[in-house]
Amino acid sequence: MSAGAEFWVEEVQDGDYGMKWRGKELLFRGTSEFQKVEVYDTASHGRMLLIDGLLMTSERDEFVYHEMIAHVPLFLHPEPRRVLVVGGGDGGTVREALKHPAVAHVDLVEIDGMVVDAARKFLPSTAGCLADPRVTVRIEDGVKFMAASGEPYDVILIDSTDPIGPAAPLFGDAFYANVKSRLSGGGLVVAQGECPFYRLDVQKALAQVVRGAFGTAALYNYHNLTYPGGLWSFVAASKAPRDLAAPDAARVAALQPQLRYYNLETHKAAFALPEFMKRGLTD
Amino acid sequence: MSAGAEFWVEEVQDGDYGMKWRGKELLFRGTSEFQKVEVYDTASHGRMLLIDGLLMTSERDEFVYHEMIAHVPLFLHPEPRRVLVVGGGDGGTVREALKHPAVAHVDLVEIDGMVVDAARKFLPSTAGCLADPRVTVRIEDGVKFMAASGEPYDVILIDSTDPIGPAAPLFGDAFYANVKSRLSGGGLVVAQGECPFYRLDVQKALAQVVRGAFGTAALYNYHNLTYPGGLWSFVAASKAPRDLAAPDAARVAALQPQLRYYNLETHKAAFALPEFMKRGLTD
Repeated sequence: MSAGAEFWVEEVQDGDYGMKWRGKELLFRGTSEFQKVEVYDTASHGRMLLIDGLLMTSERDEFVYHEMIAHVPLFLHPEPRRVLVVGGGDGGTVREALKHPAVAHVDLVEIDGMVVDAARKFLPSTAGCLADPRVTVRIEDGVKFMAASGEPYDVILIDSTDPIGPAAPLFGDAFYANVKSRLSGGGLVVAQGECPFYRLDVQKALAQVVRGAFGTAALYNYHNLTYPGGLWSFVAASKAPRDLAAPDAARVAALQPQLRYYNLETHKAAFALPEFMKRGLTD
Repeated sequence: MSAGAEFWVEEVQDGDYGMKWRGKELLFRGTSEFQKVEVYDTASHGRMLLIDGLLMTSERDEFVYHEMIAHVPLFLHPEPRRVLVVGGGDGGTVREALKHPAVAHVDLVEIDGMVVDAARKFLPSTAGCLADPRVTVRIEDGVKFMAASGEPYDVILIDSTDPIGPAAPLFGDAFYANVKSRLSGGGLVVAQGECPFYRLDVQKALAQVVRGAFGTAALYNYHNLTYPGGLWSFVAASKAPRDLAAPDAARVAALQPQLRYYNLETHKAAFALPEFMKRGLTD
């Protein structure tokens, strides 16, 4: 895999299906106490971050994921001042949150300092924002951080990997009870919610966990070029009763020139679930 | 690639990115006068049809494509009696059209008899419907068929491959002028419309061609597990003024138990285009 030799960056799921991208250069490879971290440059998709062999983000399409995890709750909250991102060490979610003029402070709690270091060095388009004075980067276990007390957040974004390895507790009841207690009165949480084609059982379990804490939970969808299945979901909940498909149109219009995927229509449409999801989530 | 040996079914696009599925068995391989046709059984996605190395349909997710190409126009037309499918030799689009009680006749015009023969033999879940007495299979050039005169159709579905090889004329002005002339007064056309992430230029050109013939054209989106990019589009046009996002709710409700992706919400949501598509299509 040295520069110059032909190679492919590959992700295989369940041993049976996968995606591949022609590699240009291996920029970073390290093994932290938590996981294997790699950054590649590719022929067609820019730079890519992989954790334990699974693609986390590519420069070409990261805007879809990061806009949809951040702007849906941030345009729903009337005045989001304090934001917490758990996971998301590449910085893309923080970058989107900072576009909102009301946001005065963002805490990024990432368990693995190697991810943040690699992103700062090799993925400046997402991690450059971490130098913003409104941002505090905390290399800590998000589960322990959430269990502690502190000033409440208006929006909490769980920008996690899949529910295996270090991210597994982020899909559990105890974690979401703490998420609720760390949110302000009208606060919202949104979490990475897996793929309905391949992981509907995980989606259903996560929705039940969130519903257990908040009394309600809604899934919404987005597209991902570089995640298997193409159709992926977030799960959202609000501490106060709220129409999750009704963002603040005036604020959306003001930020629209800075957004490439999100708009009023995609926000509302994201909550329209295909029939197999509706059935699978209520079975 | 004999049965027993380990192998992968792979599709590579632009030489730089691709998808792969663990193969179980090569069921059919032939070369017609038009293209290479293959059917594989796979470990995770059932049987797959490939044409010239590009995946056309997989048993696991074909319902999304076939429901969305067929039911969007069929629930918009007040009484779709005659349907024409151009391409679509696997039969999945015809199967969905036949679910509508009003549909009295479907013509399937497929240029390559080898595709139909292979599908009848190895893909009965899509091609089984071709034995229905309401269906006429015509192994003919869809371009020539469309240029001829005949009884008008209420809905025409262009279920084509990409605009290379035999399908290229299906993306042109002359073809769409003929489509319009073969539609009844309130008729609708829907065509396979490529991937906005990777082929926005092709989408824009196709929309302009359709707009040139019909005075209007709308793109709508669906998800595809097994097409690169995950987000794909159809292009739709109606000969009569019509709100394309307003299907007949009572008829949708009556067919809903037979549908796995399509519902009232996904129909409307499909017309909500991400910001980069709106910009790219109007630039």
